[in-house]
Amino acid sequence: MALERLDAALTVELQHLKDEGRGKAPERVITGCLPPDATHGRRYTLEGYDRPFLRMNSNSYLSLSFHPTLLEAADQAGRRYGVGPGAVRFIDGTSTPHSALEQRIAGFVGCPAARIFNSAYTANCGLALTLATSRTHWIGDQLNHNSIIRAMRIAGVPGANKGIYRHNDMDDLRRCLDEVDPVMERVVVIFDGIFSMRGDHAPIDRIVELCRDYHDRFRDGVITVVDDSHGIGAYGATGRGTVEFCGAMADIVVGTFGKAFGVNGGFIAASATIVEAVRQKADTYIYTNPLGAADCAAAAGAIDICDSGEGLALLANLQRRTGQLRAGLAALGLESIPGPHPIVPLLVRDTTATRRLVERLFEHGVLAVGLTYPVVPQGDETIRFQVNAGHTADDIDFLLSHLGV
Amino acid sequence: MALERLDAALTVELQHLKDEGRGKAPERVITGCLPPDATHGRRYTLEGYDRPFLRMNSNSYLSLSFHPTLLEAADQAGRRYGVGPGAVRFIDGTSTPHSALEQRIAGFVGCPAARIFNSAYTANCGLALTLATSRTHWIGDQLNHNSIIRAMRIAGVPGANKGIYRHNDMDDLRRCLDEVDPVMERVVVIFDGIFSMRGDHAPIDRIVELCRDYHDRFRDGVITVVDDSHGIGAYGATGRGTVEFCGAMADIVVGTFGKAFGVNGGFIAASATIVEAVRQKADTYIYTNPLGAADCAAAAGAIDICDSGEGLALLANLQRRTGQLRAGLAALGLESIPGPHPIVPLLVRDTTATRRLVERLFEHGVLAVGLTYPVVPQGDETIRFQVNAGHTADDIDFLLSHLGV
Ligand SMILES: Cc1ncc(COP(=O)(O)O)c(C=O)c1O
Ligand SMILES: Cc1ncc(COP(=O)(O)O)c(C=O)c1O
Repeated sequence: MALERLDAALTVELQHLKDEGRGKAPERVITGCLPPDATHGRRYTLEGYDRPFLRMNSNSYLSLSFHPTLLEAADQAGRRYGVGPGAVRFIDGTSTPHSALEQRIAGFVGCPAARIFNSAYTANCGLALTLATSRTHWIGDQLNHNSIIRAMRIAGVPGANKGIYRHNDMDDLRRCLDEVDPVMERVVVIFDGIFSMRGDHAPIDRIVELCRDYHDRFRDGVITVVDDSHGIGAYGATGRGTVEFCGAMADIVVGTFGKAFGVNGGFIAASATIVEAVRQKADTYIYTNPLGAADCAAAAGAIDICDSGEGLALLANLQRRTGQLRAGLAALGLESIPGPHPIVPLLVRDTTATRRLVERLFEHGVLAVGLTYPVVPQGDETIRFQVNAGHTADDIDFLLSHLGV
Repeated sequence: MALERLDAALTVELQHLKDEGRGKAPERVITGCLPPDATHGRRYTLEGYDRPFLRMNSNSYLSLSFHPTLLEAADQAGRRYGVGPGAVRFIDGTSTPHSALEQRIAGFVGCPAARIFNSAYTANCGLALTLATSRTHWIGDQLNHNSIIRAMRIAGVPGANKGIYRHNDMDDLRRCLDEVDPVMERVVVIFDGIFSMRGDHAPIDRIVELCRDYHDRFRDGVITVVDDSHGIGAYGATGRGTVEFCGAMADIVVGTFGKAFGVNGGFIAASATIVEAVRQKADTYIYTNPLGAADCAAAAGAIDICDSGEGLALLANLQRRTGQLRAGLAALGLESIPGPHPIVPLLVRDTTATRRLVERLFEHGVLAVGLTYPVVPQGDETIRFQVNAGHTADDIDFLLSHLGV
């Protein structure tokens, strides 16, 4: 059929996005990388550019993606189980690395059971599909990740069954809890552990305490869910994430293998019954191929490293480098949002200045993300830096040297 | 918080599913496999069982998951680009294997451009997010895959903007087209290329012809979308899928790298403008890590094989073995749904008999899927066999020897 008219309509729409500053620039393509040396962390090469780049925009907080243990585990699992699974889980698409990873991650986050997904994105969708009923009310932080918003949609949660509280505002969460229609049987309070645009964390201890007051008002209680995609592996004394940092457990933990662990994939960890309900009801678990065995084996390897002396050393360097960057920003009189997470925002508070600085960094060989309106509110224009355990003191100094005026 | 009451509620719900025959049996776990020999294809070992199993329930139609080219490509790409991408696409999560695969699959299916996703599941979701507007009307086959149904949900398509036609029934599709509210600006007709429970295909030539009559009624026209997850690589003279088999092109092609190609991942192929709109608007593309470079490289390797003399030989064996199974069923007086696709259903038309036969096959070392009510309509109880290019004549004879009475 002729696509001219659809193409024309989409062209107009894309132009609007661009005019509003919401269009995404063309993607840059990574062509390879240079291994770290004594003073520099890994550098990346980009299609069309000669110079190597320092990445300050990767979620790979523990810097494990090139770790020989992960590469070996992936290769061996691929050779033993095949590159792809060839089927969905319930039709013999499950192999030993899948169940092993599920046990490993459940143990790591301190839950009785877990199921893996292709991503944290589809894990959130699967959780909503598992728990949503016409009498389930959902309450979320206003800054929750897109996958949680879309999870409400895919599970058909009506507007009346949803509440949104101001970012990390416990009074407003209380208001949302007060406003739940008493006919509701189940309340789910769901929030990012670490907020990816800001690097701050949800006060899980206070959220859990507050929810406890309301637990007995509803047949199934008030259930807390943390999506700790940016926290697990990267935050807390032993990398257990925001739960560890706050000293309080959520009922259900969603996470990813694609950030600190350096691989790909997501998971839901919870009670054995909830996890069995996920297996029976979560369409994004049931009707799609699972991760390949290679990714599962690599992810399990990453958790093992994180859980070892080597992992603690990586975490210590991550914290040192994060501290160095935060102190350096402060010394330059630049504004950030305080906290120990390796997401370090630089608040520029101006669109043009943000764009210029991101460009200047790029010209000097630093990759960072500029967040401008309408991605962040007007006046909150930010450059987001992400530290990882492979960064050296020199790398951070190099970055800082291009941030002064 | 206490999960006892939620667990109790879910336990009741899971018991209902089981009582209705909709509960999924515990997952079997594949522990490894035995390489093929002169007369037998690959056999699989399962946790808790001594004997090896013949898999008649894998989507890996070209039997490429263990191909050395794919294993090598995966390993090398992992070593060069890292196990995981470490970021989403628009934040430098794109590397050479991602763009290369996008070009390769676009060329293979005959479209100007393509974008890859983590799965065909999230590709369908992404397509709906890209195309849906309040004035877009969606029409689908009643047997469409779960991911298309859920795609309507995630994109918030209201019930009034949807029509469903009886399976492959062109008169009923015409009725759906007639019923579209004239205020609609865009109509999308979306259907599986191959229907996974039956192995029959959508008559793309007739669908396209019918839609043409309505194209000028709507501002953006009537757009056809085929999700050819089970067709691409496995169907048509050169593996181009249902489009090739029917000799008619759809406007947009969705597919997977997780079936015939033996890896994982999905894609949308279409005009350059539509594909750019996908990149700008499809949340399931934007806000989640892409496939790892290893999967991309392996998938590109699989397409290359499919597109070579070796691929044509595999396809020829797939067709021969499929023919052998279909002829064998007929010789035994057993009922199937005619057609050349390697999904070969055996219509048993009775729940108990279906379950018994699946069990008997399992005891003899054959893995196959029983489909009973309510997964299929009452009276349509079926055992689904899936042939792949690695099966030998002996394998098919072995299966047939256990199907007679
Ligand atoms: C028509 C159709 N679309 C999508 C899928 C899902 O494919 P994937 O595993 O890539 O998500 C399937 C497979 O079950 C399918 O049959
Ligand atoms: C809170 C949160 N959830 C989910 C995701 C998506 O993770 P994945 O790439 O595993 O889908 C992200 C990352 O962007 C995130 O920040």
